[in-house]
Amino acid sequence: MDKNYYCVIMAGGIGSRFWPVSRNAMPKQFLDILGIGKSFLQLTYDRFARIVPAENIIVVTSQSYVDLVRRQLPQLAAENILAEPYRRNTAPCIAYASTKIRAVNPAATMVVAPSDHFISNEALFVDTISAAMKYASEKDELFTLGIDPTRPETGYGYIQCNMKQSKTIDGNIAYKVKTFTEKPNRELAKVFVESGEFLWNSGIFVWNVSAICSALAKWLPEVFTLFNDGDRYYGTPQEQDFITRIYEECPAISIDYGVMEKTSRAWVFQASFGWSDLGTWESLYLHAAKDSDRNLVKCTDTMIDSTSGCVVISQEKDKLVVVKGMKDYLIVNTDDVLMICPRDDSKFKEILADLAVNEKSRFM
Amino acid sequence: MDKNYYCVIMAGGIGSRFWPVSRNAMPKQFLDILGIGKSFLQLTYDRFARIVPAENIIVVTSQSYVDLVRRQLPQLAAENILAEPYRRNTAPCIAYASTKIRAVNPAATMVVAPSDHFISNEALFVDTISAAMKYASEKDELFTLGIDPTRPETGYGYIQCNMKQSKTIDGNIAYKVKTFTEKPNRELAKVFVESGEFLWNSGIFVWNVSAICSALAKWLPEVFTLFNDGDRYYGTPQEQDFITRIYEECPAISIDYGVMEKTSRAWVFQASFGWSDLGTWESLYLHAAKDSDRNLVKCTDTMIDSTSGCVVISQEKDKLVVVKGMKDYLIVNTDDVLMICPRDDSKFKEILADLAVNEKSRFM
Repeated sequence: MDKNYYCVIMAGGIGSRFWPVSRNAMPKQFLDILGIGKSFLQLTYDRFARIVPAENIIVVTSQSYVDLVRRQLPQLAAENILAEPYRRNTAPCIAYASTKIRAVNPAATMVVAPSDHFISNEALFVDTISAAMKYASEKDELFTLGIDPTRPETGYGYIQCNMKQSKTIDGNIAYKVKTFTEKPNRELAKVFVESGEFLWNSGIFVWNVSAICSALAKWLPEVFTLFNDGDRYYGTPQEQDFITRIYEECPAISIDYGVMEKTSRAWVFQASFGWSDLGTWESLYLHAAKDSDRNLVKCTDTMIDSTSGCVVISQEKDKLVVVKGMKDYLIVNTDDVLMICPRDDSKFKEILADLAVNEKSRFM
Repeated sequence: MDKNYYCVIMAGGIGSRFWPVSRNAMPKQFLDILGIGKSFLQLTYDRFARIVPAENIIVVTSQSYVDLVRRQLPQLAAENILAEPYRRNTAPCIAYASTKIRAVNPAATMVVAPSDHFISNEALFVDTISAAMKYASEKDELFTLGIDPTRPETGYGYIQCNMKQSKTIDGNIAYKVKTFTEKPNRELAKVFVESGEFLWNSGIFVWNVSAICSALAKWLPEVFTLFNDGDRYYGTPQEQDFITRIYEECPAISIDYGVMEKTSRAWVFQASFGWSDLGTWESLYLHAAKDSDRNLVKCTDTMIDSTSGCVVISQEKDKLVVVKGMKDYLIVNTDDVLMICPRDDSKFKEILADLAVNEKSRFM
């Protein structure tokens, strides 16, 4: 494995999307909601450990989740966990990680990825990321991974490709980025997919450290200047104080909006390794293994009859869960919450909104 | 209150009808399933304490429930709890209580009643029972209470009245019993109710102790002979051994079948105090107080939306129960069982049957 390859896993998200299983104190990336035996964070780490040397894997998370990261990834060196004192979106996170990596290895090439996504074809994932990193190590270009859309999904952002500017990289295709778009409505999503010009925005980036630092300096100087001073503090006992001080001043801005939309060096690397951000119960249901009645069941003891299309999750040990005559419902039981709701993201979102309105925030 | 008035409360039933709230170890009579603050047994005791002297109230129960009775009725003297070693239906239970009462007071008049029924008009109940007892204290007749049917209920037994043989008792009407019938089907139940000749069989009896002992001696000599010897043991340390010995020999038989159907002294005392045996979740739902969406909710913390006609019960403390988009379901959550099932007695019965088939009897 190339000693210059680095991976930055972004694990700072707070989580209500799989409420009541996910909580502010236990967001999605730390959950094993598919019942695989590993959390999303652990799965993400394992995937990248096949691409970059283990000592070059860095996790950026919120200060409040540092203990969770340590517990789930005990093999990770303490200095490889970067703790963000405030939530400032992806650009500051990437500026921190990039300048920190640059300080120890200016020849580094990085892959940056969320910690809570689902990848169905891991071998293809490894091949695709490796190809992108190999290419990016030699060119000052910024790659974002775009996923071949398989349906007119309204829950994702899209990247429009400039179909006239493409290149073949080790059997893969990369296009010059034309536009980034927010989540479209159903009609627009259909137009996007049918056009053949749009890919799903995966939030995974590949670039060499010099290229991203130059781009940050050019397009987000107000962010980059703060971190550019970091060389003096990184790896010293003063690092955390320095980070706390500059994060307070730092604007919250995404790398897509702050850099990728502006630079002419942005390319989208087409990928088809089976990806989902598992951002909703519905997307979890779609990707999870189901029984012959299309139920996703995770309980210690069940008696389920005349029931189909349901998610049935109970985290209480030794509890018998009896379900009869239900169709397309979410049934989720934790130690302190029982939720029964149609398996419909819009209904579920109403519940999240109602929790605040009904002063049930303590259950978030 | 008349010192010769006695009450026998039958509290030996085992309970799966309100599963998973009721259990073999905690049957219905010991539950406060309506959320009133008192169990059915405690409510039954309170009702009869308005009619008979407290020291004359006797509870007959299974040996395994004696501690539960003591805990729920601490005011009851130890000798007023009769412990049955085996389940032998109502005739042996009544023979035991009757001979025991006769031993201390041969002039006694008794009311015998189940411990787990619901009475909506308690004042009328007191008046009706009092009138029946007053009359029965002077006549060697056996009264069963028949409830004016308000619907063609298929869950109850019916008593057919001999409309030509009636008498007025203190403003009430009693008819000679023509037949006892088992639970009818829907068509037959309609015919019964429309005929005006049928009353619901409440399982409540009123008679003087001499009359019931004579009737038992005549119609159930194989049972009565066993208990007739009891005078030697009742109130002594040998009573329980004696009872254990004779219960083993005793056939299991109901008082309806063993005595009331046979004797010409059986009368049905018409009553209309609002009665239900609350024998099913559906009957509980019908009689319980409901919210404006017709939901029966008993939980410490809920957020219920777009939901109607549901029973929502959670016995876990500090658990938030979130229910959305449900219609006519039973949602019952205990420490070790979560049940979600259509609010339909036949579906619920299937679950009870399935528990055994699926080797989940430990949850019964």
